[in-house]
Amino acid sequence: MLSEFDIIRRYFTRPAPSAILGIGDDAALIQSAPGMELAVSTDMLVCGRHFFPDAEPRKLGYKSLAVNLSDMAAMGARPRWATLSLALPEPLVRTDEKWLEIFAQGFFSLAQTYEVELIGGDTTQGPLNICVTIIGEVEAGKALRRSGARPGDDIWISGHLGDAALALAHVLGRINLQPEDIEACLPALDTPAPRVALGRRLIGIAHSAIDISDGLLADLDHILKCSRVGAIIRMDEINCSASMKRYLSHPLAINCLLAGGDDYELCFTAPQSTRQRIGILSREQNIPLTRVGIIGEKEGLVVLDADGNPMQLEARGYDHFRAE
Amino acid sequence: MLSEFDIIRRYFTRPAPSAILGIGDDAALIQSAPGMELAVSTDMLVCGRHFFPDAEPRKLGYKSLAVNLSDMAAMGARPRWATLSLALPEPLVRTDEKWLEIFAQGFFSLAQTYEVELIGGDTTQGPLNICVTIIGEVEAGKALRRSGARPGDDIWISGHLGDAALALAHVLGRINLQPEDIEACLPALDTPAPRVALGRRLIGIAHSAIDISDGLLADLDHILKCSRVGAIIRMDEINCSASMKRYLSHPLAINCLLAGGDDYELCFTAPQSTRQRIGILSREQNIPLTRVGIIGEKEGLVVLDADGNPMQLEARGYDHFRAE
Repeated sequence: MLSEFDIIRRYFTRPAPSAILGIGDDAALIQSAPGMELAVSTDMLVCGRHFFPDAEPRKLGYKSLAVNLSDMAAMGARPRWATLSLALPEPLVRTDEKWLEIFAQGFFSLAQTYEVELIGGDTTQGPLNICVTIIGEVEAGKALRRSGARPGDDIWISGHLGDAALALAHVLGRINLQPEDIEACLPALDTPAPRVALGRRLIGIAHSAIDISDGLLADLDHILKCSRVGAIIRMDEINCSASMKRYLSHPLAINCLLAGGDDYELCFTAPQSTRQRIGILSREQNIPLTRVGIIGEKEGLVVLDADGNPMQLEARGYDHFRAE
Repeated sequence: MLSEFDIIRRYFTRPAPSAILGIGDDAALIQSAPGMELAVSTDMLVCGRHFFPDAEPRKLGYKSLAVNLSDMAAMGARPRWATLSLALPEPLVRTDEKWLEIFAQGFFSLAQTYEVELIGGDTTQGPLNICVTIIGEVEAGKALRRSGARPGDDIWISGHLGDAALALAHVLGRINLQPEDIEACLPALDTPAPRVALGRRLIGIAHSAIDISDGLLADLDHILKCSRVGAIIRMDEINCSASMKRYLSHPLAINCLLAGGDDYELCFTAPQSTRQRIGILSREQNIPLTRVGIIGEKEGLVVLDADGNPMQLEARGYDHFRAE
């Protein structure tokens, strides 16, 4: 059976030319460019909670980095370096070396796209658990925070929401999607596209930003609480995929859209004077950017239905200790 | 039951005055001082492998940070910031809020001692797993690496080795220690003292360093391989506690001493011209520093017994996928 050193050497040691020292010592050594701050974030993915035990290792490798890149996007930071810690069940290592090889391929395919270097990590035996820490760079004082929203700001979202949650609901047997809709929605769940380039371009435009990982309502609420403001959003302005639109009469679909989580789109606020710039940015980046509401002084989050009436909403987002 | 946000707010949100932005956004923001490099390391502790399911949460909180501080010590870096990711079993969160409170006390007690700030993390439900990433600062170009050992260097170790492994062997019923020896050895297992101040002082003195986490033979071997040199060490020069000395006729004790792991002492090499400085350092820091051998050009690691004969050694250190 592979030793932990074999695993690291064989699957996870790649050149890290922009690090001073990469994998193989007690710590990696890095140095940020002058005038830059470092953004640091970490996400832990647990088997049976964030992914199914039989999840495809390539998609898992991809997603374990993607969710961290999404945090960099939300800060406007350029992701640079990552560490990867893995707890691996003994049978997996003993019987299925391919799993690690393909997991690494998924991880590094995305890492290469974003020029992220793996500089360290840990490998141990245990119930499958994947913990990635990402370090990015952002111009000093310019990071997009949750706390910068101001009354009068437009509220924007990138892409469209709810497809990942809709795909998951189908997999769990809670809704029955048509085959073409499954096919359309599954990539949002398995291989979300982190909005790194968009986040970088929002520096100097957006007043605040967050990535939508727990659902729009919960994540927008973080912006509101951190900024001590309120918001009104209009349900029918939220950008949906063609698939999502077909199921919007189903209460579960509404829940997926507003509170499903796993979207990894950006929600940001920006002054109304930047609407034209944001329109240009949307075309340049080929990413839909949609205004869904407005920040107000009065605290709280109101969602209006198509008739302009406040909606009564139960679920507010994903909570790892409350959700079933 | 506590939500993940409750857990973070209640137990893990403390001031982080030296970070630009601490817990509560998509990422933390930090900036290193001019002329400094950042050292980054991560360790994952898994229930049932690194600690027992009934481990005292205070000691667990302490140790999960201590093992990372030890990596900073081995680089000569000053630890500054940490992230903490926790997978927590649902029953633990539901029934035993005290566990989290006491775990956090253990973690922060050590963090405060070393002025380490917790700047981020993740909390999720799952089999108990603790992953800490630590970021430290070290003067540019000065970090202690594994690769700097040169023929003629003395090989030094700090403190004494094997007590942690001896205590563990007792707990597992593989050896029967006297009560006073259990009491003497258990702190090495539960609450090891990371050699951070020593590591900082070794900059400019040591040619290479590593922390002994997998056992002296395995960790010294990393230095040898990275430096492309060999070594001869003398078994009877290795510093033992009074307890260890009482059991040295037991083959298991020899194994604990040389290959037990969990020591979190430093092994470093330094030119013979620095012996006097190292002696002064030992007295200043009140830490035994013992010369145990010498680096040679011929690759390989030879351990000599008390009669000067090479020992035949089986176990070479701890491997998470091979060890039972």
